[in-house]
Amino acid sequence: MPAGRCDQGACTSPHSRSSPTSEESEMHGMQIIGAETSACGKQTFTAHNPVTGEPLPTCFHEATQAEIHQAALLADEAFDPFRAKAPNGIAAFLFAIADQLQELEQVLIERAHIETGLTVQRLTEEVLRAIHQARLYAQVVREGSWQMPRIDIGLPEAAPQGRPDLRTTLFPLGPVAVFGASSFPISMSVAGTDTISALAAACPVIVKAHPLHPGTSEILGTAISEAARQTAMPSGVFSLIHSTQPEVVRHLVQHPIIRAVAFTGTYQGGRALMEAASNREDPIPVFAEMGSLNPVFVLPEILQERAPKIAEGFVQSITRACGQLCTRPGIMVAFGGKGFDQLIEVVTEHALKAPSQVMLSESIFEACREGTDRIARTPGVLSLTPLTTGNPAEEPPARHRCLTNTCSLFQANAKTFLAQAHLQEDVFGPVAILIRCDTEEELLALARNLSGQLAATVFGTHSDLREFPGVVRELKKRVGRLVYNGFPTDITLGHAIHHGGPYPAAMFPHFSSIGTTAIYRFVRPLCLQDCPEEQLPQELQDSNPRGLWRIVDGSLSRQPLL
Amino acid sequence: MPAGRCDQGACTSPHSRSSPTSEESEMHGMQIIGAETSACGKQTFTAHNPVTGEPLPTCFHEATQAEIHQAALLADEAFDPFRAKAPNGIAAFLFAIADQLQELEQVLIERAHIETGLTVQRLTEEVLRAIHQARLYAQVVREGSWQMPRIDIGLPEAAPQGRPDLRTTLFPLGPVAVFGASSFPISMSVAGTDTISALAAACPVIVKAHPLHPGTSEILGTAISEAARQTAMPSGVFSLIHSTQPEVVRHLVQHPIIRAVAFTGTYQGGRALMEAASNREDPIPVFAEMGSLNPVFVLPEILQERAPKIAEGFVQSITRACGQLCTRPGIMVAFGGKGFDQLIEVVTEHALKAPSQVMLSESIFEACREGTDRIARTPGVLSLTPLTTGNPAEEPPARHRCLTNTCSLFQANAKTFLAQAHLQEDVFGPVAILIRCDTEEELLALARNLSGQLAATVFGTHSDLREFPGVVRELKKRVGRLVYNGFPTDITLGHAIHHGGPYPAAMFPHFSSIGTTAIYRFVRPLCLQDCPEEQLPQELQDSNPRGLWRIVDGSLSRQPLL
Repeated sequence: MPAGRCDQGACTSPHSRSSPTSEESEMHGMQIIGAETSACGKQTFTAHNPVTGEPLPTCFHEATQAEIHQAALLADEAFDPFRAKAPNGIAAFLFAIADQLQELEQVLIERAHIETGLTVQRLTEEVLRAIHQARLYAQVVREGSWQMPRIDIGLPEAAPQGRPDLRTTLFPLGPVAVFGASSFPISMSVAGTDTISALAAACPVIVKAHPLHPGTSEILGTAISEAARQTAMPSGVFSLIHSTQPEVVRHLVQHPIIRAVAFTGTYQGGRALMEAASNREDPIPVFAEMGSLNPVFVLPEILQERAPKIAEGFVQSITRACGQLCTRPGIMVAFGGKGFDQLIEVVTEHALKAPSQVMLSESIFEACREGTDRIARTPGVLSLTPLTTGNPAEEPPARHRCLTNTCSLFQANAKTFLAQAHLQEDVFGPVAILIRCDTEEELLALARNLSGQLAATVFGTHSDLREFPGVVRELKKRVGRLVYNGFPTDITLGHAIHHGGPYPAAMFPHFSSIGTTAIYRFVRPLCLQDCPEEQLPQELQDSNPRGLWRIVDGSLSRQPLL
Repeated sequence: MPAGRCDQGACTSPHSRSSPTSEESEMHGMQIIGAETSACGKQTFTAHNPVTGEPLPTCFHEATQAEIHQAALLADEAFDPFRAKAPNGIAAFLFAIADQLQELEQVLIERAHIETGLTVQRLTEEVLRAIHQARLYAQVVREGSWQMPRIDIGLPEAAPQGRPDLRTTLFPLGPVAVFGASSFPISMSVAGTDTISALAAACPVIVKAHPLHPGTSEILGTAISEAARQTAMPSGVFSLIHSTQPEVVRHLVQHPIIRAVAFTGTYQGGRALMEAASNREDPIPVFAEMGSLNPVFVLPEILQERAPKIAEGFVQSITRACGQLCTRPGIMVAFGGKGFDQLIEVVTEHALKAPSQVMLSESIFEACREGTDRIARTPGVLSLTPLTTGNPAEEPPARHRCLTNTCSLFQANAKTFLAQAHLQEDVFGPVAILIRCDTEEELLALARNLSGQLAATVFGTHSDLREFPGVVRELKKRVGRLVYNGFPTDITLGHAIHHGGPYPAAMFPHFSSIGTTAIYRFVRPLCLQDCPEEQLPQELQDSNPRGLWRIVDGSLSRQPLL
């Protein structure tokens, strides 16, 4: 990758580029603008190891407006030739990305581990997931049925003036800006679902790297660039920029070339992007996934039967990755009584045993501590776990103990919860409230009180579900995914998963940000009326050369037209 | 339909309810709130006959906040029982709406004619279209494949911890607010695509009647209410309110019960709704179709071959319904030369012969006249038709001559057009500019300069299309529908039509506001994870009792699961 002309950034970090470590020798800290690197910005920043609190090697240059503009121009230039590569060229590109990720697995895990404090096991799963995802999308693109072309065959002889021939395919929106998640540095970041599904849709992508893992981002970005080079993609098909500045975010979102934004993160972050996008002369969609409370409802019979197992699973679910998952359950609701008491008891027992874990960053830790304190200070709320901010027994380096966190659990009754709006705000971290209901009305009131959720869980036996149909009915109206007798934290990649939900879980309830349907965010229908056969794209041609399933006069068919 | 308790409105129009005409005897001028009528508002308004300028019988009561709230509460109450009727109950409801429309055909046409000035022939087509549309949707709902359920079969034995069973169906958003178009008083108004597709999706609907055709709206609203009664739908499934006040629009859009808005109208109207919707605590989508320029590009060879025929078709297209169609072409572009001169000549000839027609209202006429004058005053723009505001030969009633309009045509070269942004604004009426290009670069610059369009047309022979691929390529990036060798004004109902496009033609490029795909605006995916078979909705059950096409592990199948 040739370097750009303006590598003049002056890094002020103690780990300057003159004393390289083993990781740093692989890192350049520059923007990846198409096939070139660029470092025009004078400002730099470093990542920090959340375990030691120390700055990490490599200074990352803040992107300049000119660099963003250059990335946007290249993306615009790349759009037509990139579209022309579909579907086989794009599939090859995605397969090559997967191969690159596989090759870089160890480097990626090492760097992500020191940037995020996430465990090697978790990061290994993430790499495998990212590789699997790129291959899955490659297959979907190559096979082609995802487009589900629609054809209403023309009837030139129909009275009174003939019926036109209408053929509708899906057309890419154009260049997409991607903002990755801090908590999934590999599988929902630079080479995550947003980027891969946008590329699969033939949209060039500009990623703004998350400043908490710029090194991981660089490795991932280099992998995509290298895959683009190997498969002869137009260079502007992918760029990666670094920044810690809100103006840069706004500048990218408001660049006229950008046609859509994809984001995974906080409610505040999503809203800021949405405002930037709607203040454009031509507003563009922001596909933001903004997390939620993901409530767990436990019905009476199953509570009696399985309270200890549910309690154990709940603590496992909320402490996964130190609670830094958008599908972590933030509340568990059950009827008061013996079962509830047992639930409290076993949950508390497991929570007290939960090992402390390092959070992604000081600001995330601080937000978690503030949120936890706010809950603890609420009248009527009982703390089930000691209000410490770390587990002294594990003795992390003294100056950095503050970033470690154990599980914080609270108990409240339904009335208290419903009366305090702030208890319904998602606290990002291993924090949850157990809520006691005394009547079915309270249970339903809790369900009805929920805003849009990515997921919810209902635990119930067959007879529970028959006896309390209202809970499921009310949850369905408010969630993107309803889990029966399990926890929502695992999300399987595939064709039937939906990860999204009514606002504020996501900006648009129609679209998923995980799974193969995530591609539909980046395409729009394009209808060709009375288009001559020789001008039709393959998927709409009479002969159906790819043998695709199509909706012909309203019915599915993979036959050629007669 | 029983009357509400507060019929206290005092009509101040000369046509008070004490002197009924034949039409008035059928009209009550009240809100239709579920199964009841209501007239709590003291303010009233009347419609006007655009031909005579006179107020029409029946005073319409302005809806109060309390009435809107009542309609919203009923819609919310109706949501669950209405969903439970799907699919056969909803299909029966839609069929009953079609039957009601058929029964009321003559009354509808009569009232719409005096409220809008549109011809009886045009209104007859609209009624037939509305009837056809309701039946088409009934069939789609009954057949069920539109839902395209997705199933990833669970693998409890898969390593390391089993794969969950994921089944995703489409779930209605909830109550929808509909704002109809002034220019399609029947087929895109109270019982138009927005209402019918929302009802088909099992969303209760509250329509705000267009104040230019409140009587037509009342007849249509009564038809839907009667169909709801006949098919035992919950009463809140449909309400119709009247208002001329922007606050009332805002109040409806911002009511917490409303989950989506559908609108057909002007850019300004769409933007106002979008602002109201995004200023909610929980923003909701506004599916606004806001019209566009719908440019026509004529390539050289076909221009030589068919200039007179294209010219004639163009004038027919822009004068249909006095140019009051959202797909009316506002510009036609061709290379200068003999063909272009002939195009100008024949277009002018037909334009001068075009009969004057009455516009929908004084404000629409005024906006058209102002837009026309603005074009005429632009340096470099040549008027091809006399700048009159009516055709004296036809002698409409003197005091109302101002509402009649003939065709206004202009000529400009590409440089002039590109330099004057206001020429690219859509003037709603029989107005168009013919643009002369001198180079292919100019032709492409015109295409690239376009904002999002509902439709565009390219006229070209096979060799034209091969020789000028850039025009089609650039248009595809900017339009929802591309018409080859025809005009965009006719829109066929069906499964493959797409009516929408990139902003500002529509708010979201992903959705259509005409055709059977319009239903997808009002549903969102809902994923059920590990749901017990007996709790699954029919479309997701193993046995596939309705024999639907489903996407099972990524492949289409209508077989039961093994």
